[in-house]
Amino acid sequence: MQYFNVMDYEAPAQARMNAAHWDYYAGGSGDEITLHANRAIFDHIRLRPRMLVDVTTCDTSTSVLGSPVSMPILVAPTAQHGFAHPEGECETARGVGQAGTLLTASSVSSRRLEDVAAAASGPLWFQLYVFDDNTITVDVVQRAEQAGYKAIVLTVDVPRFGNRERDLRNAFHLPVSANFDVPDVTKLKPSLTWRDLAWLKSLTSLPILVKGVLTGEDTILALEHGADGIVVSNHGGRQLDGAITSLEALPEVVEASSGRCEVYFDGGIRRGTDVIKALALGAHAVLVGRPVLWGLAVNGQEGVRHVLELLRNELELAMALCGAPTLKQITPTLIRR
Amino acid sequence: MQYFNVMDYEAPAQARMNAAHWDYYAGGSGDEITLHANRAIFDHIRLRPRMLVDVTTCDTSTSVLGSPVSMPILVAPTAQHGFAHPEGECETARGVGQAGTLLTASSVSSRRLEDVAAAASGPLWFQLYVFDDNTITVDVVQRAEQAGYKAIVLTVDVPRFGNRERDLRNAFHLPVSANFDVPDVTKLKPSLTWRDLAWLKSLTSLPILVKGVLTGEDTILALEHGADGIVVSNHGGRQLDGAITSLEALPEVVEASSGRCEVYFDGGIRRGTDVIKALALGAHAVLVGRPVLWGLAVNGQEGVRHVLELLRNELELAMALCGAPTLKQITPTLIRR
Amino acid sequence: MQYFNVMDYEAPAQARMNAAHWDYYAGGSGDEITLHANRAIFDHIRLRPRMLVDVTTCDTSTSVLGSPVSMPILVAPTAQHGFAHPEGECETARGVGQAGTLLTASSVSSRRLEDVAAAASGPLWFQLYVFDDNTITVDVVQRAEQAGYKAIVLTVDVPRFGNRERDLRNAFHLPVSANFDVPDVTKLKPSLTWRDLAWLKSLTSLPILVKGVLTGEDTILALEHGADGIVVSNHGGRQLDGAITSLEALPEVVEASSGRCEVYFDGGIRRGTDVIKALALGAHAVLVGRPVLWGLAVNGQEGVRHVLELLRNELELAMALCGAPTLKQITPTLIRR
Amino acid sequence: MQYFNVMDYEAPAQARMNAAHWDYYAGGSGDEITLHANRAIFDHIRLRPRMLVDVTTCDTSTSVLGSPVSMPILVAPTAQHGFAHPEGECETARGVGQAGTLLTASSVSSRRLEDVAAAASGPLWFQLYVFDDNTITVDVVQRAEQAGYKAIVLTVDVPRFGNRERDLRNAFHLPVSANFDVPDVTKLKPSLTWRDLAWLKSLTSLPILVKGVLTGEDTILALEHGADGIVVSNHGGRQLDGAITSLEALPEVVEASSGRCEVYFDGGIRRGTDVIKALALGAHAVLVGRPVLWGLAVNGQEGVRHVLELLRNELELAMALCGAPTLKQITPTLIRR
Repeated sequence: MQYFNVMDYEAPAQARMNAAHWDYYAGGSGDEITLHANRAIFDHIRLRPRMLVDVTTCDTSTSVLGSPVSMPILVAPTAQHGFAHPEGECETARGVGQAGTLLTASSVSSRRLEDVAAAASGPLWFQLYVFDDNTITVDVVQRAEQAGYKAIVLTVDVPRFGNRERDLRNAFHLPVSANFDVPDVTKLKPSLTWRDLAWLKSLTSLPILVKGVLTGEDTILALEHGADGIVVSNHGGRQLDGAITSLEALPEVVEASSGRCEVYFDGGIRRGTDVIKALALGAHAVLVGRPVLWGLAVNGQEGVRHVLELLRNELELAMALCGAPTLKQITPTLIRR
Repeated sequence: MQYFNVMDYEAPAQARMNAAHWDYYAGGSGDEITLHANRAIFDHIRLRPRMLVDVTTCDTSTSVLGSPVSMPILVAPTAQHGFAHPEGECETARGVGQAGTLLTASSVSSRRLEDVAAAASGPLWFQLYVFDDNTITVDVVQRAEQAGYKAIVLTVDVPRFGNRERDLRNAFHLPVSANFDVPDVTKLKPSLTWRDLAWLKSLTSLPILVKGVLTGEDTILALEHGADGIVVSNHGGRQLDGAITSLEALPEVVEASSGRCEVYFDGGIRRGTDVIKALALGAHAVLVGRPVLWGLAVNGQEGVRHVLELLRNELELAMALCGAPTLKQITPTLIRR
Repeated sequence: MQYFNVMDYEAPAQARMNAAHWDYYAGGSGDEITLHANRAIFDHIRLRPRMLVDVTTCDTSTSVLGSPVSMPILVAPTAQHGFAHPEGECETARGVGQAGTLLTASSVSSRRLEDVAAAASGPLWFQLYVFDDNTITVDVVQRAEQAGYKAIVLTVDVPRFGNRERDLRNAFHLPVSANFDVPDVTKLKPSLTWRDLAWLKSLTSLPILVKGVLTGEDTILALEHGADGIVVSNHGGRQLDGAITSLEALPEVVEASSGRCEVYFDGGIRRGTDVIKALALGAHAVLVGRPVLWGLAVNGQEGVRHVLELLRNELELAMALCGAPTLKQITPTLIRR
Repeated sequence: MQYFNVMDYEAPAQARMNAAHWDYYAGGSGDEITLHANRAIFDHIRLRPRMLVDVTTCDTSTSVLGSPVSMPILVAPTAQHGFAHPEGECETARGVGQAGTLLTASSVSSRRLEDVAAAASGPLWFQLYVFDDNTITVDVVQRAEQAGYKAIVLTVDVPRFGNRERDLRNAFHLPVSANFDVPDVTKLKPSLTWRDLAWLKSLTSLPILVKGVLTGEDTILALEHGADGIVVSNHGGRQLDGAITSLEALPEVVEASSGRCEVYFDGGIRRGTDVIKALALGAHAVLVGRPVLWGLAVNGQEGVRHVLELLRNELELAMALCGAPTLKQITPTLIRR
């Protein structure tokens, strides 16, 4: 079989995986309204391409918090890659490195963050869940810094786990993470507040990105409390069902950030044209989650690499067809409002 | 079978019930446009959740017209619970009490209001239909007060019964109510006007809520004529087909009430996220009808309790995920317009 | 079988009729976009009902150009009732009379206008198609006046017949009309202009309604040229496919008419709530076409009577549930914009 | 079989063609969102027809860049007519001539442009793709002028070929063009810019139309650089998937052109009412692509002629039913916004 776009990987991935594991990856919370809306919103945004621009070379390379990457398409943190491949996140890291881009390794992982770092050839960020026991946070943040991760991505939209009914119906429970000894990784610290950002910053010299912001108000709070970047995200439709789509939230976050930090985007990216839409609305780069897992399940590191390469190629083509050969030329005027 | 949300109770309830009785509960009027719109509108309202608020404790308890309840989710008046359970409203009252909330007992009941009061452990309101014969109204209002009901909920949207074609096709007729000797409970007093509120108030010291208001104009009239609260409702899509959805009507009622009374909401609540949307748009609490009947049909008082508990848990989770640990923090800024 | 609403007559009517005749009645032009839009638009208009108005008596009676009728629901002109019933328009006229309302007899008729008048007990209008041969127009207008018709309804939206592909596929041709000797009734006078209204008025003392107006501009022209009333209509979606729906056109016609004439509405009425929506948007009365033919096909005059009675009952109920017991109380505030 | 509209030709054409060739004609790029949106948008635009205008004669004839044609419906450039008919573009040219209108011959052709010109009885335009090798462009432009083509239509929306996944799945490759010796016609010159227009103009005395403009900004650039006309087009949904529909882009192009050049339209025309909508929004004429190929595949030149004649007849009928017997009377007031 040939894979001409990332969706081509979805059904073969499902066919290769345990059903409950698949549902854990694929599902959203509640009625999955936000899960589906994340995708549907892209089709309502129309592009206004420009013609007769020299697009001999379309350059997708950029840097994210200073790390050079081959494309403004990063890998979002997703849990337990061992469900998709025996080598887990190590295998993912190899494929991501081959594609020349960045992997955000999840706290909730089948492999230790040090092993992932050892397998990786490209830059890494570390996604952080904060548990009640602060020693775990201290430990994991310092280990991540030591292992060479370039940033901490603090997930802020999980004071409690969302109501993922597929998991309930499957009686599925997340296994323990290879990263730390927390028996139930779905019990996070519900008292975490913006003030804790200062404490986190005291633990590490790494920049801290805040992932899960959906409003201008929280953008301002994040910046006031020292965040070094923001990831606009509704956690792939897995937390608050009925939450605004990431793409609808993006403009107000971008506006509130006033260029004071890099704004990232995650939620529903499946096409290069999706990427260009998010960039035109102000994202510095996008993060992709499920498609990477599909590639991993189907074909290991090569599948991961190919999924990312497909997206990069589609983005490059979209840039050419939009008359925007550099990322800087991707501006809001590309969007029909 | 396990029930993970209130919709899980729907099909099993239908399977246990007489078909005509089911249709009476489930149906709307005319083409059931308003019935379906009541639900669909919720999916078009998107939430703007706030992050990194301390949500260790999310408190759903509140009071309604002074009665403390465990959640801002009350039980709407629905007729003839005997269709769902041999113990009828008495069984419902037990389950509602176990959930720590309030039952609005219907005039058109399988059990006498005194029996319902005896079975109840939580607060009760009494829903009132006014018939041509004033002695019935006098009798029932005074009995309700004597039996310990805390308020009279005057239904104002039934000058005539709606055109419920399922009932016509089933040749279904509502049985007589256990509460009074009215041979045809679908023949109400069509000459009832706002001026009659004064007379009703003269019959009782209980507060009077007006249920069925859908406009700002009628909100103002209700308050001018002494109403102590308003229930925004289109009678579950069973009266005027094509009527505005309750959720669309809510903001104009809230605005017209200017905080002078508590505004309640009824129409289409199936999820905790629906509750938080209605509260954010200004409802003091919501009323739930059909899901309670589903729980009753499937599992008696335990089913009633569980349906309400599911909604309370979902609301609590939604509050946590919205960064609104108290009901007071649920404000219009939570809503994407 | 029992018929609880007018749609209940549709399938049984089709079952009793010749397929090509059915298609002639049922079809629209082109892709039938306007045909379907005429219906769909009603479901997007929501009502704002008012409560606690004395609706003991809801009076649907009115007068149309001075003729008293039992309801603001008239019968639209439709061709060749002989397809539905051997007695054709005479049978229709009997049923319409029993319902106490008005029939607009079509130029293109299975029975002579004089026979229809003889069968009718209620008021009649005569729908006029103008052919190239003026003597036919002179003849038929004068005969209509003599036979007691109360108005001429000049159809203005058929300079050519619409592209009704069902008829083409069926190789269906309209038979000659019983009213005059025109071999091809689909060849009308394409040079008819507003100036011809003066000539028409010179032929008769009857008021002249202009049927098929969809714009404010033409409303003004119609009034300038002496029209005594306007029927907003897109010919049931049978002329210009893609034309604006009648309900969308109604407000601009009403506004342009500034109360200088009665404005009628035709296009998609199937429910009493549809009637109240059109009246709230400014129609003086509505005309119903296809449902009357369904009643005629299924049960002759009794079917016609019942279809109209169903609509009248639904309108009366809608008035009660909207708190508008008189037609005068049906105003634009009933509509959610 | 009889063909009552152009869609009637679609399935029979597919039945006669090689599947990969059919997919090449029928497909769009990516998820085919723009392909489908091009059609769907027409159904959301509603017409405001005017009545009682003398429409005895509806004149569809016009001239395009000075060439008289029987209708404002031209044939869009499409590649490789040999897929549909052994005589290829020569056969098409015969049918187009019989219909009295203009063919835009594609650079990528089954027959040489000189042969097409020899077969044609009506006016011709030549669609130009610019390759890296300038001698090809010089050659083909001069040959087109010599062969009597009336204009050069420079395609500007193909710096790279779109992502046409049907072709990828079919492993389909465009054959070489009969017009020139370019081994891979999908490799165009990506460095082409507005400045190259001056060079193109230096090669020929023919007017140059720019095809593929979708924004007001590019309209202004085109005029500044000497374009003699613009074709609003998204290449039939085959280039940038997610691009604005042609019909949405048309008004801003018309506005930016300020009447300084003729604006043509292409994208989704299937009905005479589609034509009148595009004209009302400011198009001077429309171009039709796929339906002409369907006619060609089914019935050669006669099929081509009939498809065009069907559209002309539908346009004429739409003009009559809109009260616009001349093209000049088709103005923006015909459109409901």
